[in-house]
Amino acid sequence: MSTLFEMSREEQEALYNSTLAQYEEYKSKGLKLDMSRGKPGLDQLALSDEMLNMYIDPTETKVDGVEARNYGELMGMPSCRRLFAELLGVKYEQVFVGGSASLALMYDVIAKAHTHGLLHSPEKWAKLDKVKFICPAPGYDRHFTICESFGIEMITVPLLDDGPDMDMIEELVKDPEVKGMWCVPKYSNPEGIIYSEQTIFRIANLKPAAPDFLLMWDNAYCVHEFDGAFVPFLDILEACRLAGNPDMVFEFASTSKITFPGAGVSCFCCSEANMEYMKKLLNAQIISYDKLNQLRHVKFFGSAAGVHAHMKRHAAVLKPKFDIVLETLENEIAPLGIASWHKPKGGYFVSLNAMEGCAKRIHELCREAGVVMTGAGATFPYKNDPRNSNLRIAPSFPPCDELAQAMQVLCIAIKLAALEKLLNK
Amino acid sequence: MSTLFEMSREEQEALYNSTLAQYEEYKSKGLKLDMSRGKPGLDQLALSDEMLNMYIDPTETKVDGVEARNYGELMGMPSCRRLFAELLGVKYEQVFVGGSASLALMYDVIAKAHTHGLLHSPEKWAKLDKVKFICPAPGYDRHFTICESFGIEMITVPLLDDGPDMDMIEELVKDPEVKGMWCVPKYSNPEGIIYSEQTIFRIANLKPAAPDFLLMWDNAYCVHEFDGAFVPFLDILEACRLAGNPDMVFEFASTSKITFPGAGVSCFCCSEANMEYMKKLLNAQIISYDKLNQLRHVKFFGSAAGVHAHMKRHAAVLKPKFDIVLETLENEIAPLGIASWHKPKGGYFVSLNAMEGCAKRIHELCREAGVVMTGAGATFPYKNDPRNSNLRIAPSFPPCDELAQAMQVLCIAIKLAALEKLLNK
Repeated sequence: MSTLFEMSREEQEALYNSTLAQYEEYKSKGLKLDMSRGKPGLDQLALSDEMLNMYIDPTETKVDGVEARNYGELMGMPSCRRLFAELLGVKYEQVFVGGSASLALMYDVIAKAHTHGLLHSPEKWAKLDKVKFICPAPGYDRHFTICESFGIEMITVPLLDDGPDMDMIEELVKDPEVKGMWCVPKYSNPEGIIYSEQTIFRIANLKPAAPDFLLMWDNAYCVHEFDGAFVPFLDILEACRLAGNPDMVFEFASTSKITFPGAGVSCFCCSEANMEYMKKLLNAQIISYDKLNQLRHVKFFGSAAGVHAHMKRHAAVLKPKFDIVLETLENEIAPLGIASWHKPKGGYFVSLNAMEGCAKRIHELCREAGVVMTGAGATFPYKNDPRNSNLRIAPSFPPCDELAQAMQVLCIAIKLAALEKLLNK
Repeated sequence: MSTLFEMSREEQEALYNSTLAQYEEYKSKGLKLDMSRGKPGLDQLALSDEMLNMYIDPTETKVDGVEARNYGELMGMPSCRRLFAELLGVKYEQVFVGGSASLALMYDVIAKAHTHGLLHSPEKWAKLDKVKFICPAPGYDRHFTICESFGIEMITVPLLDDGPDMDMIEELVKDPEVKGMWCVPKYSNPEGIIYSEQTIFRIANLKPAAPDFLLMWDNAYCVHEFDGAFVPFLDILEACRLAGNPDMVFEFASTSKITFPGAGVSCFCCSEANMEYMKKLLNAQIISYDKLNQLRHVKFFGSAAGVHAHMKRHAAVLKPKFDIVLETLENEIAPLGIASWHKPKGGYFVSLNAMEGCAKRIHELCREAGVVMTGAGATFPYKNDPRNSNLRIAPSFPPCDELAQAMQVLCIAIKLAALEKLLNK
């Protein structure tokens, strides 16, 4: 089979007509399919139902001297802090366990930078004329939404196969207005790539002009392999410490995609000096987060090994879904040479780079045929994908049969949009 | 028996000596008693243990079309919003259900006023030279801590028997730098008084110069009677609306002292216009709070009637403890005329006004005899009780026998401090 670009105009026209006919047929089915968000599917939720109804003896709610049913212990249940320390390879003292959402913890750190300043801030960010953040893209839309909400200027930096473009970043951090950077170091959202050790080393060794440069290390998919063995990762806190930047980084993680999304447990990790500083600020905000839910999680998993075993069960559900996505793209799109994508082994997304200028049209075609995708451009700061090419595929939520249908629609839309462009339709 | 002031110097000396002997005796016992925080006791926690192990059928976690085990529904489970609406007498649309801490929601509203401004803010508060808050005192120390954390200047206003001094407040709000006020309208912390309808009417009808004046209505003890029938309260949102101030107020409540402290469910209530505004801001912060815990609470209580029935069980535990406090004060202190206190029928505290200039000394004497009290002055902004007179007694946490001992020590300390002062010891 020839790529689309090798075809004659007649062949392209013929393909356009047959594809359009396929599209109209799907459209007439009145589908309602959703590949828009990285939501675990119902079969994944069921994996943790045991925790939902786990018996907790009220005489066992006091652990390490802390009563989980009462006020107190700002940093969270010690046993839960130990669990995260083990999972993330950081020290116990560096872990603060929060509520059900790591997003809220991330928002909080940036909010506090504005209202109080960070440990090394010469001034609160709210007093500054301009604050800029480095945003590797494609990236996670909710990171960008936080920046937008605070009026932080986002600087788009390309995400390469081994992480963000470090040459560019090393230049950018010379600007003292550049105050931070977002990173999803493992199975990045949406590309699914893992930052190389070399990239992580260069990040840890950055020499930012801003003394309060804030590395937002969102380790959202730290144990989220769906294909193959667990991939170990560097302790970014230690890497930054060795590089002489001990207070530059805040790492975040949660069990939202391990147990129950929005009802799990989240944490942030940072240097002991940062922790002392943050504790003083957090002490004004909350007495303690939900320690009963922390207790439940510790009891459910026991240890990091328990988490890894649980993730194998998620993998068994997720792998077939990613196979559907990747195989459909391989069969339908690869031969035509009109799109590219990574083949992730973990995380929640497949990031599709369609023919330049086609992403919005593909999104529209899908929507009109009843398939909801994440908005085109959403993976870029200001929703501005300069090439109008990237689309995020989220296969986890729909059941396999629906996903297969949705992927057929998507592939048809990818072809149609490309042909429309080539044929000036 | 004569009051202390009616006694001769000899009688005072004799009383001092006998009291000192009693004090030394208690001191030698090596007591470790805590009346410092409004923490529910273990017997109160046990009242909700059933919820801890309540069976939730995984097929019943989708309620009103919302799956509690997955992401989504920023404002919380509809059934939980309905429960709070019923409890607080507000409209469903006015309720946002948050995480486990209403304190965090309060902090958040004030944080957002600083970083984004409120609905009617001409500017973000972070841009202002000065922000002032009216703080009725004695009041809740954690409210004052939030103000201190944000550098908000606190203006102390006396709390009278029917609420804060409204004459003073009506004058103060003419200053456009006065941006808000804290209120605990029912069983105020620590006085235990209930604002009169007349006071609430005057609050709702304030005409603040600041267009974004923020009435922080912390209804922490809305259903927390321990003595007698439930006392209904006005819907402050409606009162403000009728007064032409629909967007002036945020009301807060939680189940922290209903189910599990720090592991309950919290909410804020505000006008629909405020809610639209806050939802846009909150959307950058969180996808949704823990809906499973919301579901648990709804299932546990069923309705507002279920909550009221549950509060009767708390009352049965709390009433004997408050009786110990009040009877001991009545027996030991009232005849001497050296202190005054309210006799609350709800809430978590007895607020003691000792002889002027004695609070810190009483606190010190208690501490040295092994009885921890809330710090003297903590109930005032900047920990500055101008009369050095107020002490907050928190009877809920210790078991009755320990409480009785602690109250004996406290009464001895009250007498000793007064006698030291009168006799220039």
